[in-house]
Amino acid sequence: MVSTFPNPGAVDLSHVRLSIRALQTQLVEWRRWLHQKPELGFQEKLTSEFISHKLQEWGIEHQTNIAQTGIVAIIKGNKLSSGKVLAIRADMDALPIQELNQVPYCSQHDGVMHACGHDGHTAIALGTAYYLQQHRDDFAGTVKIIFQPAEEGPGGAKPMVEAGVLKNPDVDAIIGLHLWNNLPLGTVGVRAGALMAAVELFQCTILGKGGHGAIPHQTVDSIVVAAQIVNALQTIVARNVNPIDSAVVTVGALHAGTAHNVIADTANMKGTVRYFNPAFQGYFHQRIEQIIAGVCQSHGASYDLEYISLYPPVINDAGMAELVRSVAAEVIETPVGIVPECQTMGGEDMSFFLQEVPGCYFFLGSANPDKDLAYPHHHPRFDFDETALPMGVEIFIRCVEKFLN
Amino acid sequence: MVSTFPNPGAVDLSHVRLSIRALQTQLVEWRRWLHQKPELGFQEKLTSEFISHKLQEWGIEHQTNIAQTGIVAIIKGNKLSSGKVLAIRADMDALPIQELNQVPYCSQHDGVMHACGHDGHTAIALGTAYYLQQHRDDFAGTVKIIFQPAEEGPGGAKPMVEAGVLKNPDVDAIIGLHLWNNLPLGTVGVRAGALMAAVELFQCTILGKGGHGAIPHQTVDSIVVAAQIVNALQTIVARNVNPIDSAVVTVGALHAGTAHNVIADTANMKGTVRYFNPAFQGYFHQRIEQIIAGVCQSHGASYDLEYISLYPPVINDAGMAELVRSVAAEVIETPVGIVPECQTMGGEDMSFFLQEVPGCYFFLGSANPDKDLAYPHHHPRFDFDETALPMGVEIFIRCVEKFLN
Amino acid sequence: MVSTFPNPGAVDLSHVRLSIRALQTQLVEWRRWLHQKPELGFQEKLTSEFISHKLQEWGIEHQTNIAQTGIVAIIKGNKLSSGKVLAIRADMDALPIQELNQVPYCSQHDGVMHACGHDGHTAIALGTAYYLQQHRDDFAGTVKIIFQPAEEGPGGAKPMVEAGVLKNPDVDAIIGLHLWNNLPLGTVGVRAGALMAAVELFQCTILGKGGHGAIPHQTVDSIVVAAQIVNALQTIVARNVNPIDSAVVTVGALHAGTAHNVIADTANMKGTVRYFNPAFQGYFHQRIEQIIAGVCQSHGASYDLEYISLYPPVINDAGMAELVRSVAAEVIETPVGIVPECQTMGGEDMSFFLQEVPGCYFFLGSANPDKDLAYPHHHPRFDFDETALPMGVEIFIRCVEKFLN
Amino acid sequence: MVSTFPNPGAVDLSHVRLSIRALQTQLVEWRRWLHQKPELGFQEKLTSEFISHKLQEWGIEHQTNIAQTGIVAIIKGNKLSSGKVLAIRADMDALPIQELNQVPYCSQHDGVMHACGHDGHTAIALGTAYYLQQHRDDFAGTVKIIFQPAEEGPGGAKPMVEAGVLKNPDVDAIIGLHLWNNLPLGTVGVRAGALMAAVELFQCTILGKGGHGAIPHQTVDSIVVAAQIVNALQTIVARNVNPIDSAVVTVGALHAGTAHNVIADTANMKGTVRYFNPAFQGYFHQRIEQIIAGVCQSHGASYDLEYISLYPPVINDAGMAELVRSVAAEVIETPVGIVPECQTMGGEDMSFFLQEVPGCYFFLGSANPDKDLAYPHHHPRFDFDETALPMGVEIFIRCVEKFLN
Repeated sequence: MVSTFPNPGAVDLSHVRLSIRALQTQLVEWRRWLHQKPELGFQEKLTSEFISHKLQEWGIEHQTNIAQTGIVAIIKGNKLSSGKVLAIRADMDALPIQELNQVPYCSQHDGVMHACGHDGHTAIALGTAYYLQQHRDDFAGTVKIIFQPAEEGPGGAKPMVEAGVLKNPDVDAIIGLHLWNNLPLGTVGVRAGALMAAVELFQCTILGKGGHGAIPHQTVDSIVVAAQIVNALQTIVARNVNPIDSAVVTVGALHAGTAHNVIADTANMKGTVRYFNPAFQGYFHQRIEQIIAGVCQSHGASYDLEYISLYPPVINDAGMAELVRSVAAEVIETPVGIVPECQTMGGEDMSFFLQEVPGCYFFLGSANPDKDLAYPHHHPRFDFDETALPMGVEIFIRCVEKFLN
Repeated sequence: MVSTFPNPGAVDLSHVRLSIRALQTQLVEWRRWLHQKPELGFQEKLTSEFISHKLQEWGIEHQTNIAQTGIVAIIKGNKLSSGKVLAIRADMDALPIQELNQVPYCSQHDGVMHACGHDGHTAIALGTAYYLQQHRDDFAGTVKIIFQPAEEGPGGAKPMVEAGVLKNPDVDAIIGLHLWNNLPLGTVGVRAGALMAAVELFQCTILGKGGHGAIPHQTVDSIVVAAQIVNALQTIVARNVNPIDSAVVTVGALHAGTAHNVIADTANMKGTVRYFNPAFQGYFHQRIEQIIAGVCQSHGASYDLEYISLYPPVINDAGMAELVRSVAAEVIETPVGIVPECQTMGGEDMSFFLQEVPGCYFFLGSANPDKDLAYPHHHPRFDFDETALPMGVEIFIRCVEKFLN
Repeated sequence: MVSTFPNPGAVDLSHVRLSIRALQTQLVEWRRWLHQKPELGFQEKLTSEFISHKLQEWGIEHQTNIAQTGIVAIIKGNKLSSGKVLAIRADMDALPIQELNQVPYCSQHDGVMHACGHDGHTAIALGTAYYLQQHRDDFAGTVKIIFQPAEEGPGGAKPMVEAGVLKNPDVDAIIGLHLWNNLPLGTVGVRAGALMAAVELFQCTILGKGGHGAIPHQTVDSIVVAAQIVNALQTIVARNVNPIDSAVVTVGALHAGTAHNVIADTANMKGTVRYFNPAFQGYFHQRIEQIIAGVCQSHGASYDLEYISLYPPVINDAGMAELVRSVAAEVIETPVGIVPECQTMGGEDMSFFLQEVPGCYFFLGSANPDKDLAYPHHHPRFDFDETALPMGVEIFIRCVEKFLN
Repeated sequence: MVSTFPNPGAVDLSHVRLSIRALQTQLVEWRRWLHQKPELGFQEKLTSEFISHKLQEWGIEHQTNIAQTGIVAIIKGNKLSSGKVLAIRADMDALPIQELNQVPYCSQHDGVMHACGHDGHTAIALGTAYYLQQHRDDFAGTVKIIFQPAEEGPGGAKPMVEAGVLKNPDVDAIIGLHLWNNLPLGTVGVRAGALMAAVELFQCTILGKGGHGAIPHQTVDSIVVAAQIVNALQTIVARNVNPIDSAVVTVGALHAGTAHNVIADTANMKGTVRYFNPAFQGYFHQRIEQIIAGVCQSHGASYDLEYISLYPPVINDAGMAELVRSVAAEVIETPVGIVPECQTMGGEDMSFFLQEVPGCYFFLGSANPDKDLAYPHHHPRFDFDETALPMGVEIFIRCVEKFLN
């Protein structure tokens, strides 16, 4: 899934201010420390301690143990005693993947790996916090930096919102970024509206009636019923969704029966749904159940459906997207530059913050095939070009300055 | 559909008694007269007059205008004043087919043709009546000869039963035959149990919601719904019917939509169902409606189903089948002879009589490829070998003698 | 399909220059004359004569009978002797629809009607030509005005391109508009990239083998094959198309069989395909044929497929779209104003011009429910608010001035 | 699956000759010994030794270790020095089932059980051998008694045929029986023609292309392909098989994918096919592969199909069936008696013998609900009424006497 965009050519940091370029050594050091200590969602203990320790060292006010392992730091600018509040969000969790990279900073935790770049997100947020604390005279208002657990699931954003991290002081807007190996270093993917998809999951058991494979008339063949359901589900995207909208209905697993000659009494299906348009909230659950119920009724089967609406779509505010775009265009000066065609049906719980306050989530290109840093996210050999780290800080800082001043 | 049985070789009438062989000229004459005056179901006016005229000429008591054009003749044997009653049934109606044969006795009625052999059935029944009337001393009890209208539809057997033709005197058993071009001359197809199938018909309109072909999400695509119904209907025979039973569910017509780029609001289906096992009465109606209802519900469509149970299966009584088999084996002495593997999914309203009294319906082989008399039934060039006519009379007479004496 | 956008409120012409507002009486007069003389594609004889007569009257150089009934007019600005060339395109043809409106300017041609607004497009283009000819000192370069036949099919744009209307002098860019009852008066729908869809058509005959409905094993049931094809076609949009792209595969008509009890030997399907992404050129033809071929092979059927790629997608150049957007934003000052969410899976042969030169096609809101002018395009009661006519001229003139100067 | 036939009422052994009735104690003893030592197919070591030991004790010539564990015994009648040869076949193997019965003669082999009655078949064959050896003066010709391994699979009949057990002396006809809990004690199921079905097995891997559940366009979704195959397979029985024939195509297992959000690269299916008509040999393999190949081709998938023709159908010779029927009718004098409607889609490798020589396989009713002996075959609580044992011997002996004399 590595980008098909042309190589952006030589990428330099000429638009990154000297004081941020100077942070690069530390950014890399922090990121690599975190990379060696990956922790799964809601278990980010070392990570959280590392962040808290740094913030304390720099004298930054912060609160820990929010939604178990989350942290919120607050940095007030000196330009005005009061003013607007901008939040910056970084996620901290790793994945249950055994790292296959052979680098000095390789994961030290067996079977756990920062295979999605959240170590980089945390490092960029730390760098941003450090810089802002050093330059409080340069901005008015307040910056809240949110270190969130468990983005990979079951989701730390929602409990942090519920814990009130967007209140006291009330956040006016929020930004966040994802290092993105689908885009080359030297690019930023940003767009107004939908950036990432809603993620919903379902699992369904079709309850037929088993029996000998040679006497089908005494059974309700759950495999036949499941096959017709899989077929009928295709019509949701093909016929029921506005073609101008985007949606996916995938049955990822189907398991039924054990023997050649025994008709399976039950069939189990698991699947996922994706979409951008928030108006679809609830629609796919209703539609999938309608299909399953109707087909089961056709054949005298019954069913048991569990449907989970995991994350809503990531919807960027038009104004905030324009802020990020304009800032990124100053920092990134490659021929490719800003990529608005960066939508992905992947999901992110950044969406829960964006449901509460206007904001913008964006992709910071981090692939570099020349350095063999182009494996897709969640791959056991995933790694990214660390040159992106100061770029991320510079974009965040400029957003703070532009938004708050 | 002409038989794949081996040619039975030279067929002679050596086992037909002389007095019946002597009837052959008349049998052919009657049959050819009827063939030239084919009449559709419930319009058998000339036919009925012809039969009545003959019966009157021979002094046979009979009643006309039963179920419009039907006739029942009664011939009492002299051997005993009272006794058992055997009915013999013949159908009289023709088909809306333009005859393509070029024979001297070709149909004189435009667009109507005896393309199924009912002219022969009537001639055999007349010959039987004539013989029995001449030989009343040879049998005890009573023979009822039933000339029935409209076998090809909508069905004359049921109204004749309702008119009481099996009562007064009460019929103990019934026999009937079909000249059969699927079997060669010199064979008889007879078996206990199911010989011919129940015939049911359905037509269904799927009511979706039309719209522009480019905006499917504002429609309910009746073609997609109909396709899933056609698919699901396949499972009835494949999964719901005992494999040892026989059944057919055919969708014969499907019509929906007019334009490339307009989603069809309605789809119309027509089909037929066949089965042997009387236990299936009502089952296919229920099952087809269950499938249509379930699939429609899956997609938010509705439907309008009309289901007609036309004829029940033709089920022969074991004892009566053995009677016919034993008699036929005496008359037919070819190497092929008696063919028990003669079931067909075709239907016949003889079944209504067989629902009331034990009986046996059988096939009298009538194809003769050597004389180019081998076209299938309902073909515009259908004709049969008239040598079968006295064979039919002989079998009927022997059954009378064996059953009543 | 009338817009769900809020009523834009009172719409005035305050941003339309006085000299264009002064043309309104004539614009309406021309449009209504054309509305009374609707002509089908490639039969636009009266229309063409009317246009040519006007151009001649105004002293505008033009060429007639291009691609049968098309006209190209050329107006050179005096500001510079040479310079860029901007083309403006209008379509002229009507539809085979019987008008149901009762207006003084109702169609006088039985069964033919300007039910899509092309009469208005022609009037706007004439008004633009008239104005430019009067104000040649105000612009540099050249304006080509293209009056195109047969947009509704089979397509006049392609033959006009082939006739060289974009050459001599070579056109640098092209603009065009569609009066649009899906948007209210006082709005303009414009966006970079895909605006309207590619239109492809197919028709397919499935060749099975017919037979009696009770003997399916001697047939290849074309209805069953067609049903499985309809089912499998759903997977193209559901599984094969990038969810972020837009596509439609519709089977609009399916016809097979005649009788309840006869298995249909052939099934006929017709359908349409729509998509935005030009990379899909050829893809759906290949994919649909692959599915039909595979399913036919599964069942021993064969097929005959005709596939027509009618119109490519309408793809606006980003720069030209920005030109139109900025100009329209000056002219249209309602709360709704510019509507970028105006994509439609409908098609247009403007796409053939846009394949050759950069350009922008846009929608000019023309519905006015308050005046009962809100019926959808192609409806027998379609009509639009003629206030849109001078707006269209003003936008064209400003584009000319901004693009050429 | 216990019989729905009426309870045959009190069953006595009055038609079993005294000398056979006298064997009952031994028959039960042998059967119970075998029941306690169940052995899987081709592992019938103790069983084989037991049989051989008995035969030797009785002075019966026999050969062991045929097809691993099989035995053939030869008993020549004294009535004539030469004559016809009748074979009697019994199977000896048990099933991998943990017995749940609590009887004194319960299985002593963990996880292995005589759950199909082969222990009884062996005891009946032993009793028959013993009786014949004692009564050699009563019959002419030769009886071969075939003790066959591995009927439950992978099949011992075929290797025994290949080892020549039907040659030297050449067998003229063969009989065999199955104790049958689908029929009550006091009945015999016997019919000419097909009694049990051919058994074929298939397993198929659909090879698609996996990928993320949110990017279906980069995958070939093996679950969607498998679902369409399951659907299309239904048409084989529903459309391709003569409705008068019997067939089953069952997909018993379908397994694909692991996660909600990952599209499965492969799908695995397993299934069985059953049919009576030997003309179908090879047909289902061809038809199933045609469907799988066509559907795979439709979607760009490939497949790997393994198809095994396990057992042909059990086809009884008409003459031999009549022999068994007439003999059984003498022995069994209950109201139900002989049951010709006893076809089953289950399979048996008796068919390999019946392919070589005319013969008859029949069911000996063995259920007795009054004694709680009515569990279906292959059930962990299966057991049968041992009163059937002498009945089986009597029928065998009478067949020998009638066939050979």
